[in-house]
Amino acid sequence: MLTYDLTETSLPLYDALYSAVKADILSGRLAPGEKLPSKRALAQHLRLSVATVQNAYAQLLAEGYLYSEEKRGYFVSTIGESLPAPMQKTQGKGSTDLEPAPRPVWFADLVSNSISAEDFPFTVWSRTMRRVILEKEKQLLLPLEFNGTPELRRAIADHLARFRGLSVDPAQIIVGAGTEYLYTLVIQLLGRECRYAVEDPGYAKIRRVYAASGVSFCTVPLDEQGLSVQALEESGAQCVHISPSHHYPTGIVMPVGRRRELLRWASQAPERYIIDDDYDSEFRFSGRPIPTMMSIDENDRVIYMNTFSKTIAPSIRISYMVLPAPLMERFKRAFSFYACTVSGFEQYTLAAFMAEGHFERHLSRMKNRYRTKRDAILAAIRESGLSDLATVYEPNAGLHFLLHLHTDTDDETIKKNAAERGIRISALMDYLADVSHTDFGLPCRHTFVINYSGVEADKFPEIFRRLAESCGGESPLTSRG
Amino acid sequence: MLTYDLTETSLPLYDALYSAVKADILSGRLAPGEKLPSKRALAQHLRLSVATVQNAYAQLLAEGYLYSEEKRGYFVSTIGESLPAPMQKTQGKGSTDLEPAPRPVWFADLVSNSISAEDFPFTVWSRTMRRVILEKEKQLLLPLEFNGTPELRRAIADHLARFRGLSVDPAQIIVGAGTEYLYTLVIQLLGRECRYAVEDPGYAKIRRVYAASGVSFCTVPLDEQGLSVQALEESGAQCVHISPSHHYPTGIVMPVGRRRELLRWASQAPERYIIDDDYDSEFRFSGRPIPTMMSIDENDRVIYMNTFSKTIAPSIRISYMVLPAPLMERFKRAFSFYACTVSGFEQYTLAAFMAEGHFERHLSRMKNRYRTKRDAILAAIRESGLSDLATVYEPNAGLHFLLHLHTDTDDETIKKNAAERGIRISALMDYLADVSHTDFGLPCRHTFVINYSGVEADKFPEIFRRLAESCGGESPLTSRG
Repeated sequence: MLTYDLTETSLPLYDALYSAVKADILSGRLAPGEKLPSKRALAQHLRLSVATVQNAYAQLLAEGYLYSEEKRGYFVSTIGESLPAPMQKTQGKGSTDLEPAPRPVWFADLVSNSISAEDFPFTVWSRTMRRVILEKEKQLLLPLEFNGTPELRRAIADHLARFRGLSVDPAQIIVGAGTEYLYTLVIQLLGRECRYAVEDPGYAKIRRVYAASGVSFCTVPLDEQGLSVQALEESGAQCVHISPSHHYPTGIVMPVGRRRELLRWASQAPERYIIDDDYDSEFRFSGRPIPTMMSIDENDRVIYMNTFSKTIAPSIRISYMVLPAPLMERFKRAFSFYACTVSGFEQYTLAAFMAEGHFERHLSRMKNRYRTKRDAILAAIRESGLSDLATVYEPNAGLHFLLHLHTDTDDETIKKNAAERGIRISALMDYLADVSHTDFGLPCRHTFVINYSGVEADKFPEIFRRLAESCGGESPLTSRG
Repeated sequence: MLTYDLTETSLPLYDALYSAVKADILSGRLAPGEKLPSKRALAQHLRLSVATVQNAYAQLLAEGYLYSEEKRGYFVSTIGESLPAPMQKTQGKGSTDLEPAPRPVWFADLVSNSISAEDFPFTVWSRTMRRVILEKEKQLLLPLEFNGTPELRRAIADHLARFRGLSVDPAQIIVGAGTEYLYTLVIQLLGRECRYAVEDPGYAKIRRVYAASGVSFCTVPLDEQGLSVQALEESGAQCVHISPSHHYPTGIVMPVGRRRELLRWASQAPERYIIDDDYDSEFRFSGRPIPTMMSIDENDRVIYMNTFSKTIAPSIRISYMVLPAPLMERFKRAFSFYACTVSGFEQYTLAAFMAEGHFERHLSRMKNRYRTKRDAILAAIRESGLSDLATVYEPNAGLHFLLHLHTDTDDETIKKNAAERGIRISALMDYLADVSHTDFGLPCRHTFVINYSGVEADKFPEIFRRLAESCGGESPLTSRG
């Protein structure tokens, strides 16, 4: 009869018995096919209650260590030979390399786009969320519509009509957890045979998403007006991914003539599309927003995308795209089985935040704040040792501009020197996939991208003092005539 | 000189002037290359302020309708021939087909998995969220780590250790917006050449995700112990996607012998993996939870996945996966550029909800509630006209079981009859991709899947009265001996 000493265990008794029998089965001490004692007999033998043995046997049965035959009792299952020894056990060398490297602390990070805490309307957001929880109880628990809650899509459509002059049906909108996720939906929607073109220079992330998704893509150079349509034509791409309202990082605004050329390109063959990635059009400091490609498209060839990560907070993962009606029908047929990726709580909160005018007020507050910041940073450049050494390009929109330095020091050295001085900065060349794609009317070397939205304004003078130092020599001022 | 009557407009004057000039450029009345009057001259002519004309010109310049030459003034841009006429304008036929069909109202929906409102701890969730907003201000605005906040990953690791006996490093965890999204990450991680095997019968959605992602996949039949390893071997797949703790919809719990066979299969060739999709292991009503595949894997071949959509609410889009250390290193190298898809707010809230024991209490409350519901539904079946006509399979776990009806009426007729009586129900056969895959020891025809979690218990007697009716004849009771 099976004998175990279960007096020393800290486990519940049924659990201790279960573990003991399991160990014997795994070690082979209990052989496949062997009959186990009846519950009553084992309980008597081990001075346990029948219920305890019953529970242990039930668990062993559920996990497949035992099998039962009616009226005959419990038997040991065949669980097969022992498992192969671990091959090259990587866990052994310690999982410390899995830990994310500690985030370096910069005096100023001019690469990341972040926003400062005082810019987020915590109180209103929190109050709205609380009200949503009270009012939406039932809805909060229902599965979501694949393309987002009707409330949020309606609020987005209203916003687009008022701020972008774009009139869309809320049914054309798909809400998703970030634009990168939406790119992967578009890839599925247009089919894996579709070849993509991206702007060069441009966001490296966009290239990486296409590469990671395993579709064919190419980089297309810019000229002074933005993406070259001739180069696009030659690339053989069917879908082009652009940011015509404010190209990153050059800041080029695509003029209407080039937009129309692109729309003509799209309409010249079936299944050609334009993705208008409108990532920061909210922050244009003068005049009206630049109209979207979608608003002048008459052939259903433009997919419009935008995100709330830039306007509300980077940790808010809510983006959306507007599909032309025929693509939306196709999406509904083939991909509406995907659950919406944004939680109901946040969709309802954002919808109320927008419908009650908070988003609009927040945007206009942010725009003022960023304009002030932009003015402060330009003033800091003028007043710094860099004033004679630097040219600023495209400071009228968005949360970044280009700073060209009249220096002989190469970009890598300047970045390295800056990093040693606590300044994280990227060069325009860093955004080029093909180093021959430089004919877009801006100096490519010695030009740096200044993302200033997350940097405290009182640091600006010191930043440019350190950047001037980073240009090398004893002091960059020595190069003055 | 350009002449416009701007007295009738409701727009700001600069806007009205901008629109008027733009219209003339688009219509060709103002030809490419034509010089515009100076700002001062036009202002005088139209009795506007110079600033108004300046603003209108600036906007036309920004959008590319005009260009300027230093000291010479403003000229009309070449915007190209007019755009092609719309091709087959789908918007024309009205976008009503885009609107989601109205959700049908069922007396009882036995297909969807939902939870009832009283089950969600609104007060605690809301309080936790409010506190998170107060305490985490700064962190809430920082970009998130690609794999989720350290707090949430730590809470998940603790939960896995306590409830699943699975010891993992929080650095092995990736948090994402739903398991479907995580499947697409795995597809990228294992490479597009990897061939997948899914269980048949099984969740149709899993097949659809693999199909939509364009990877090669096959369906593998089950036997009484779950997925057939021989069939898997013959399929040529490298990665198999299973739910060994509780197969959907059969409810089969894979015995340990079969698990070990699968682990051996995985270890017999490089780059073979098992996805353990542990979608509802929290709701096992008797005994301990079934151990995960990962906890008995010694070769880093198991990817563990789970979701909070079943345990908290379907509208909460938070899932996670645990990667073996070598895969996590690969993920970090190649895919950590992807932003995490779950908002910071919800990650911090869920982390606090778990760390403070609310999740544990919520689970145990839910388990009791579902057990009571399960008992009530089984009692309702026993007391119904169906008692002699029905056999129940696998009611010990999860939020569904199988109901086999001894009837000659075919499944489609029963479903249709039930639908006419307000009961939405699915048949086991609906989950089969290949109708020959029926040798898993359960009757396949006339067997229905009963998802009961979202149905009010007082409806159960009426549901089975209507289901009995749906089996056809005047009343199914006539078939009684």
